[in-house]
Amino acid sequence: MSVTAPGGFLSGATSCGLKASGGLDLALVATDDGSAVPSAGVFTSNRAAAAAVSVSREHLGATGGRAAAVVLSSGNANAVTGARGRADAQRMCALVGEGIGAQVDEVLVCQTGLIGIPLPMAQIERGIGPLLESLAAGPEAAGAAARAIMTTDTVPKQSVVVGDGFTVGAMAKGAAMLAPDMATMLAVLTTDAVSEPATLSQALRRAVTGTFNRLSVDGCTSTNDTVLVLAGGRSGRSPGVDHLGEVLGQACQELADAMAADAEGSTKVLRVVVTGAASDDEAHRAARKVAESVLVKCSINGADPYWGRVVSELGSAGVAFSLDRVEVAYGGVVVCRRGTAMEHDVAALSAVMAGKDVELRCHLGLGQGAGAVLGTDLGYGYIDENRTTS
Amino acid sequence: MSVTAPGGFLSGATSCGLKASGGLDLALVATDDGSAVPSAGVFTSNRAAAAAVSVSREHLGATGGRAAAVVLSSGNANAVTGARGRADAQRMCALVGEGIGAQVDEVLVCQTGLIGIPLPMAQIERGIGPLLESLAAGPEAAGAAARAIMTTDTVPKQSVVVGDGFTVGAMAKGAAMLAPDMATMLAVLTTDAVSEPATLSQALRRAVTGTFNRLSVDGCTSTNDTVLVLAGGRSGRSPGVDHLGEVLGQACQELADAMAADAEGSTKVLRVVVTGAASDDEAHRAARKVAESVLVKCSINGADPYWGRVVSELGSAGVAFSLDRVEVAYGGVVVCRRGTAMEHDVAALSAVMAGKDVELRCHLGLGQGAGAVLGTDLGYGYIDENRTTS
Repeated sequence: MSVTAPGGFLSGATSCGLKASGGLDLALVATDDGSAVPSAGVFTSNRAAAAAVSVSREHLGATGGRAAAVVLSSGNANAVTGARGRADAQRMCALVGEGIGAQVDEVLVCQTGLIGIPLPMAQIERGIGPLLESLAAGPEAAGAAARAIMTTDTVPKQSVVVGDGFTVGAMAKGAAMLAPDMATMLAVLTTDAVSEPATLSQALRRAVTGTFNRLSVDGCTSTNDTVLVLAGGRSGRSPGVDHLGEVLGQACQELADAMAADAEGSTKVLRVVVTGAASDDEAHRAARKVAESVLVKCSINGADPYWGRVVSELGSAGVAFSLDRVEVAYGGVVVCRRGTAMEHDVAALSAVMAGKDVELRCHLGLGQGAGAVLGTDLGYGYIDENRTTS
Repeated sequence: MSVTAPGGFLSGATSCGLKASGGLDLALVATDDGSAVPSAGVFTSNRAAAAAVSVSREHLGATGGRAAAVVLSSGNANAVTGARGRADAQRMCALVGEGIGAQVDEVLVCQTGLIGIPLPMAQIERGIGPLLESLAAGPEAAGAAARAIMTTDTVPKQSVVVGDGFTVGAMAKGAAMLAPDMATMLAVLTTDAVSEPATLSQALRRAVTGTFNRLSVDGCTSTNDTVLVLAGGRSGRSPGVDHLGEVLGQACQELADAMAADAEGSTKVLRVVVTGAASDDEAHRAARKVAESVLVKCSINGADPYWGRVVSELGSAGVAFSLDRVEVAYGGVVVCRRGTAMEHDVAALSAVMAGKDVELRCHLGLGQGAGAVLGTDLGYGYIDENRTTS
């Protein structure tokens, strides 16, 4: 259960005062000898990307996809902070690079927290020394790193998946501002597989597309989203892109599930599955429209199987749709068939709606396209978490 | 203040038991002599369009844009009700047509309420007689018609606008499931202007584009949205499409403002204005992204000027965006300029945020494109209204 489960990696964490609580707020994942290894990243599509996103993207470009470490901070997103924010993120990489004997562009950086507030760099600079000293192997140090990247998360999120002779370890944070095409989330994966940067990058993209990009808590795409993978190669095994993508994807899926379960202020996880669409892409778009509908989310919060709203969202999802073919089922209980209400077992439906995990299946009856999106309900808790930042 | 303010129209209302409260639930607007006059409609883009939408669209097509009456019911949307729902909507038109001496396809129909439940036609059939008897000129009958189309609305919505020698009268309902490209809303406009169907239709489209289609309470596009206009011609004036569109637009804007102010469970109206975009279309898209962001809406509910979320939404709106040019202001208080935080008058900003109407201006600094979207905050009230239908 840790980001250093694959051989060849160390992690550490410390507190430098970015969080009012005084909790852990700086984390580091590094190769155990400071060497740069094949690495890849997937970043937010937001054009207001944070300083850390620009810097990490640039560093991966400069090195041709190699990195020795990832430094992460929580409590301040260092986003919409201009040239100063960029210099600050660069400086964090430089300080870590000096500490582990790596070039500045061999260090990647991730940040999460409030947008628009300059980083308190003096605190961060004072924290880098203790952070470097905390580097260690083993689950305890990795657990501390996973806790150090939490913001509104209530539990740390870690995953280990074993592939064919190699291992993937991972940690992530994310509880809101979560939408397909990346979430307010950071994830760092490591592996002892042998992989060249191009293959690694391709495998990571596949892994993220089917997992993090199918998660939507609130339809908001953040400024700081980053998923990074470092491949140390200690296992000596060179998986093909398919198997590597699959194993990375399993690790990402475990983290995505943990994010949905820990979503800000939510009480239920909603899995929307669309089948029978004209294409997989249309199925995903329709599933996203339903999962992001505030009306559907309110119904789920109230355990109300008001499928009329679901059909209305499918009809306005901008995909091929024929009202007289649509079928809707909650947890296997069909409530609408061929575009009209369907007699059903009311007690069975109530039991489904009362559960913490609700599966909503929509069949469009048009083709073979299928897709699923993971979402949540919308209740008082989300509003409490988000109505003020203070 | 009424849909029969222009000469030549009557209205009426009655209760037939569609609403559990026993309140008014059937409304009728008709020409005073049963003659069919030039008419036009704009309908939901939802592919799960309700029976009434299909029937009204078809009737306008069959008559080449002429209608003698609009019958409206509230409490049951008659949506996702299959062939039976269609026959029921047709039957309503036929009964009204018989009563006023018009052909079935000269009667249009609008319905609003819960989706997926068959119409109780026996009740409606019994109600048509009293509805016809209630037809009268004057503001009292028109006020009753405006009340009869309310669902979760807390106030009736009417408007009268005087143009160059002619008058437009209007009524509408709508309080949620409101999004650009139509809202869960019905609106009927009348005018004594002389206008051919083609001109009238063009003028109505212009009016709706800039008003109802710029309103978003929750990003949900309903199955029943309809805006209709009947032009009786009694004034003898023939305004050009520009002036007619403008006057119809003023009436629509008044109704749209009333809908935003009465939005389900909301406590504040948020007007998002985007300027300096690459095009008007991009400005509107960006404004809609901000106005529909649940995170931004939560901030408005909490009176928190967390502009970082606004910038993040602009950056992920899918429009041309340059972070180092963006400017954000609440009620004239600039909080972000050139992509970084801006010193500002904290007391003035608090006063703006405490208001019931908040204007959020975003300047992208890229071009001449401008657009605005009217939205609301998101608080407990919306969830209370929407978590269960019972």
